[in-house]
Amino acid sequence: MQGLMMNAPLNISALIRHADRFHGDTEIVTRLVEGGIHRYTYSDAHRRSRQLANALASLGVKSTDRIGTLAWNTHRHFEIYFAMSGIGAVCHTINPRLFPEQITYIVNHADDSYVFFDLTFLPLVEKLAPHCRGVKGWVAMTDKAHMPESSLDLLCYEQLVNGHSDHMEWPEIDEGAASSLCYTSGTTGNPKGVLYSHRSTLLHAFGACLPDALGLSARDVVLPVVPMFHVNAWGLPYSAPLVGAKLVFPGAQLDGASLMELFESEKVTLSAGVPTIWLGLLNHVKSQGVRFGTLKRTVIGGSACPPAMIRTFEDDYGVQVLHAWGMTEMSPLGTVNTFKSRHLDWPEAERQALQNKQGRVIFGVDMKIVDDEGLELPRDGQAYGDLMVRGPWICREYFKGEGGDPLRDGWFPTGDVATLDQDGFMQITDRSKDVIKSGGEWISSIDLENTAVAHPDVHEAAVIGVAHPKWDERPLLIVVREPGATVTREALLAFFEGRVAKWWIPDDVVFVDALPHTATGKLLKTKLREDFGRHKLPGT
Amino acid sequence: MQGLMMNAPLNISALIRHADRFHGDTEIVTRLVEGGIHRYTYSDAHRRSRQLANALASLGVKSTDRIGTLAWNTHRHFEIYFAMSGIGAVCHTINPRLFPEQITYIVNHADDSYVFFDLTFLPLVEKLAPHCRGVKGWVAMTDKAHMPESSLDLLCYEQLVNGHSDHMEWPEIDEGAASSLCYTSGTTGNPKGVLYSHRSTLLHAFGACLPDALGLSARDVVLPVVPMFHVNAWGLPYSAPLVGAKLVFPGAQLDGASLMELFESEKVTLSAGVPTIWLGLLNHVKSQGVRFGTLKRTVIGGSACPPAMIRTFEDDYGVQVLHAWGMTEMSPLGTVNTFKSRHLDWPEAERQALQNKQGRVIFGVDMKIVDDEGLELPRDGQAYGDLMVRGPWICREYFKGEGGDPLRDGWFPTGDVATLDQDGFMQITDRSKDVIKSGGEWISSIDLENTAVAHPDVHEAAVIGVAHPKWDERPLLIVVREPGATVTREALLAFFEGRVAKWWIPDDVVFVDALPHTATGKLLKTKLREDFGRHKLPGT
Repeated sequence: MQGLMMNAPLNISALIRHADRFHGDTEIVTRLVEGGIHRYTYSDAHRRSRQLANALASLGVKSTDRIGTLAWNTHRHFEIYFAMSGIGAVCHTINPRLFPEQITYIVNHADDSYVFFDLTFLPLVEKLAPHCRGVKGWVAMTDKAHMPESSLDLLCYEQLVNGHSDHMEWPEIDEGAASSLCYTSGTTGNPKGVLYSHRSTLLHAFGACLPDALGLSARDVVLPVVPMFHVNAWGLPYSAPLVGAKLVFPGAQLDGASLMELFESEKVTLSAGVPTIWLGLLNHVKSQGVRFGTLKRTVIGGSACPPAMIRTFEDDYGVQVLHAWGMTEMSPLGTVNTFKSRHLDWPEAERQALQNKQGRVIFGVDMKIVDDEGLELPRDGQAYGDLMVRGPWICREYFKGEGGDPLRDGWFPTGDVATLDQDGFMQITDRSKDVIKSGGEWISSIDLENTAVAHPDVHEAAVIGVAHPKWDERPLLIVVREPGATVTREALLAFFEGRVAKWWIPDDVVFVDALPHTATGKLLKTKLREDFGRHKLPGT
Repeated sequence: MQGLMMNAPLNISALIRHADRFHGDTEIVTRLVEGGIHRYTYSDAHRRSRQLANALASLGVKSTDRIGTLAWNTHRHFEIYFAMSGIGAVCHTINPRLFPEQITYIVNHADDSYVFFDLTFLPLVEKLAPHCRGVKGWVAMTDKAHMPESSLDLLCYEQLVNGHSDHMEWPEIDEGAASSLCYTSGTTGNPKGVLYSHRSTLLHAFGACLPDALGLSARDVVLPVVPMFHVNAWGLPYSAPLVGAKLVFPGAQLDGASLMELFESEKVTLSAGVPTIWLGLLNHVKSQGVRFGTLKRTVIGGSACPPAMIRTFEDDYGVQVLHAWGMTEMSPLGTVNTFKSRHLDWPEAERQALQNKQGRVIFGVDMKIVDDEGLELPRDGQAYGDLMVRGPWICREYFKGEGGDPLRDGWFPTGDVATLDQDGFMQITDRSKDVIKSGGEWISSIDLENTAVAHPDVHEAAVIGVAHPKWDERPLLIVVREPGATVTREALLAFFEGRVAKWWIPDDVVFVDALPHTATGKLLKTKLREDFGRHKLPGT
């Protein structure tokens, strides 16, 4: 027997329509890639999204077509999000920081029919175009006055928008239909596409706004530093219109001074980004001796947030850090670090230790840790195992079936090793493929690396497992010394004593000049395993 | 093209499973109907819900069966919510304050196979039973020691639960399936059933938790005074486990002293109820000279909240009032009164005036006002028209098609007349059927009644439209004087001058000893129109 409530599909167009109707004069502010500040409202954005939708139709774009973007966080990118998904096409955001060969692969794999790009990326686009034969047109996201010289026959974004009426009603779309696409680049193999749906996007937006997640309200002014090409800027372009929060887009200028200027002039209350960005911002703030006038909370994710950064924000500047964790495959939010009642009474040191964890599960995400056999391990904050997730905004397979069926018994394996406690706080201890299996027990390579870099003479460190006849694997420490430093193998190994369990201490140290990284800056452990996997350990 | 996210249906069982897994030791506290305080956790509640689910199966309850409850807010009622919906049956909450004939009608119309009841309602149940032939069993919600003597062959709740294992997995249920049922009693005709679905219930729970709605978090302790037989206690039994908030159930004792005792002993941070309840509580608090130790917010809805009550809570006690509006047909939340950024800078008097409105639309509900032809009127805070709503947690038709198709062009007519402003703030000015149409313009009967009762000699007042040869309708004021008061027709009409537009002033006054009301205390205007609809106005 069916319930008798309205059959109202969860459509992305409902977000911009809601923001227009009930938050119509709330502002969206952009630092333009061409220079200067652009300022308009949700009503304007909705109107121009409809104009763009009509323009897309005139270009022959059909529902389910993929359209690429190589773009910063701007009002135009925001319009593209809603225009494309609104008509049932798929908004395919591309990370311009990938290698050009990877981008070419992605554009061709996605069959993008058009690509919209910011002027910054013209040289990149001119390099890609000859290899992307399926692309019918390249659209420069600027006005006529700023249209660049190019070997390509470019379309002009503002001419497209202004050349069309805003008269249209968003079609009702099956909520399971694809709405946007984002490729994730692993350390091996080709990038794989995660194909979000209208439903997953809206449920994620609801979850992200919860008080125990980002706590978004109409009183917030949100500046997403995290790029819109990186998992839809963690969903903020959807969550903000859901609650009618003012949006501030920083465009191409992500340095501390430029961000701080916008924070203050636009009275930003919430921001979000990766630790590297905040490092730049904090350096600027410290060196200039300025303070945040209105910033209340900042979401830090993408990689583990250094404890010192949390303390600086909270203790020195009174800004709450929302330490968060997620994945492209998770839309991305999985956990956010907010306290429960009981933690408010904890001693400060314990509360601070808790904040270093990746956070608590929000409803919509279910999470467990399992052992090698797939059996669930206790949620006691001690046991660690492979972290598995499931829920309506989590990927069930990659675009075009790349990589086969990723699920195990209906759960998505995150590739992380983690602990979970009874309150749902999760802490990542390692990547599954990097964990070192020694005598049937697991050793966290991340913990060892963090310990190593705490030594003043260590510039960067990596730990990999190396084959061992008795223990299966033992840890090998690979170190880049600080310039001029001369720390020895013995001194480094002694440094671990008392800092980690005795049997975790690496069996050997290799000194190198540099460590290999991926295009997005991740440590390339596959290469290290190739080079040092057969390193002969002392005593073997 | 479908998105490639997990097909995870929105099921009510996911809420209790989540609360068990990640908020397992968070408490649920109940003032027992039998006396004393009961205290356990979400994990306990989940375990007992599974035991009850097995018990229901043993009674032959099948998916889609309706099961009635005549019960207060208690942990047992909470278990029933999750056990019944969890196995796909329909939890049918019945308002015990209705006339017994209405309850009989409702039980039979719903085809309830079992009815669960609190001991308070045994006399009522014994009266109903002979007329409810379809009910296979009446379950007393108590333990063996408290089982009452009865002419009926009663089942005992605790024996049922304890007699069964907790071993079961909640089945995956089509999210559109019916989960619960609540009848709404109008002033005319039989009560009509609103049949909620798993999907509508979960989406509503997400919406209710938003910072601009009730702002629920794991740091909250929630005491729903609003009954679980009244639109699922405004959804709080679902919203609280979604975020892991502690729940406090007041049982049958809703007097100020009993509530205050729980507020303080359990450190309640959020409560919710109708103005009448708060009146009793505030009287108690004032007379005892006590203060709220932990209460931060209180949701007031069900009928318009008197401005003085808002001021008392906020100014005298520092408790934020969340003035809210909804309907049984809306699950129920439609609007909640929370400020936008700009309102924070408004002069106090203007902010206070804004708080008297019913609040702002939350995402998930779309809202418009229309004229007699169904054309949308401006959202300018001035124009008023029939209030129409739509969205995924709004009713599309009543159970068994009672009353035919209620929708107009896909919108549900609320039966209210309201204004909407550009920020989405809605203010109800009248019921559609009570508004007085004079010379093509509308006059609000509620505004006139509020003006009349502001006169010290007026105990209660009603205004209805009476036929007029020139203006179609003109307002007639019907008044119950305060005991001993002698205010005259002329004095009363003079009282309106300067308080309402001149052409709104009633044409005549009738004094009566009492006004007719429904079982739930609403003014019965149909009866007044029967008795006074042909009243001869002066000058006609």
